[in-house]
Amino acid sequence: MVPRGGLTPPSRDGYDLEHVFEKLNSGSRRGRAAPTGPASGRWATERRLAILRAAAGAFRKHGLSSTGMREIAEAAGLSPANLYYYFGGKDELVFFCQDHALDRLLAAADAAWASRIPARERLRRLIAEQVLCMLEELDGAVAHLEVDALPDKLRRKVLRKRDRYEQAVRRIVTAGVRGGDFRPCDPALVTRAILGAVNWTARWYRPDGPQTPAQVAASFSDYLVRGLLP
Amino acid sequence: MVPRGGLTPPSRDGYDLEHVFEKLNSGSRRGRAAPTGPASGRWATERRLAILRAAAGAFRKHGLSSTGMREIAEAAGLSPANLYYYFGGKDELVFFCQDHALDRLLAAADAAWASRIPARERLRRLIAEQVLCMLEELDGAVAHLEVDALPDKLRRKVLRKRDRYEQAVRRIVTAGVRGGDFRPCDPALVTRAILGAVNWTARWYRPDGPQTPAQVAASFSDYLVRGLLP
Repeated sequence: MVPRGGLTPPSRDGYDLEHVFEKLNSGSRRGRAAPTGPASGRWATERRLAILRAAAGAFRKHGLSSTGMREIAEAAGLSPANLYYYFGGKDELVFFCQDHALDRLLAAADAAWASRIPARERLRRLIAEQVLCMLEELDGAVAHLEVDALPDKLRRKVLRKRDRYEQAVRRIVTAGVRGGDFRPCDPALVTRAILGAVNWTARWYRPDGPQTPAQVAASFSDYLVRGLLP
Repeated sequence: MVPRGGLTPPSRDGYDLEHVFEKLNSGSRRGRAAPTGPASGRWATERRLAILRAAAGAFRKHGLSSTGMREIAEAAGLSPANLYYYFGGKDELVFFCQDHALDRLLAAADAAWASRIPARERLRRLIAEQVLCMLEELDGAVAHLEVDALPDKLRRKVLRKRDRYEQAVRRIVTAGVRGGDFRPCDPALVTRAILGAVNWTARWYRPDGPQTPAQVAASFSDYLVRGLLP
């Protein structure tokens, strides 16, 4: 599967990458697990996302636990050395997938909360944004959900962020109930039903299936908000 | 955790189990993977379900892949030899968990379909039944969902049954839309949202948490049916 955005090693794209290739060619980063290094900044994030989208296909085919860095490199059209330039190991890749998605979701939740629109619109936008994040940006990467695949320290970091996102969704539901835009309900349970419905898309969505991410986003946000209307 | 129903080896409970203990003591079934054997019939099913409920706690604590037959036996208060009397191996245990739950769900779907009640009531009952099956009968066993943990042959069997259940839910949604009980929607997407919300309960539900399975069943079935009403 050829991922969107292109995955040839970064070169001649407006960045000065001479030092990167020197490091790369010397093999000094191969196998290192340090989460930071020369592959940082916006362009590196874009490359990493493109690799994740390619990895999503490999995870779907082989399962998360059976897919190694070799298979991910192959799916991304990279040499293993080039892959290790972007991710020090599989843990780092899975962590990046979850951490990056949660950053995007938290930003969306903040924006929805700050907007001067009715609760139903806030929630509709946020659900749609989460579906798009799962299916479009991550290509339905099941890695986004496999918290248990991470070592303890990274796992705890992700779980804290995940909790913050859940609280942000619940705050919107609670405010909607208080303001009369939503019918009385248990906001904690409704929030978990919403997150479950959206997270589960990673288990069934196929990029070559009948629906686009935008169609799933529209259907889900409509259906899941309607259930709350008075 | 002491599971409901008791897990002491079957004896003096109205069944003639002499031949079973003879086999057990000779160790002839230890380590065997054959899915059938002396532990069959209704009483064995009840014992197996009690073991699954005990295993659910161990899976939650250690993760499905890190929990071996030894930990399951310990959680169930059984000797490993007694555990092997009920399950030839972990694959067999995970398969039984999924297969048994799907049989129950398919029976519930058939009953809902055959009943002469409006689509909204049919769907409400079926969602509640699925939540109860997940949280009460299986104690939120995440093993119910880990299809990829099974070897290919068993996996295909489970996936076929899972597809049948999904079709049964979709049939109720589709009939409701046609009959005007539900508003126009994409029944395939709505069905997947429902199944996602319910399946996800296995990831967050804790038996010692604030809600009973019955409360989750009532909240979920109400919320997820309301989203379909005209």
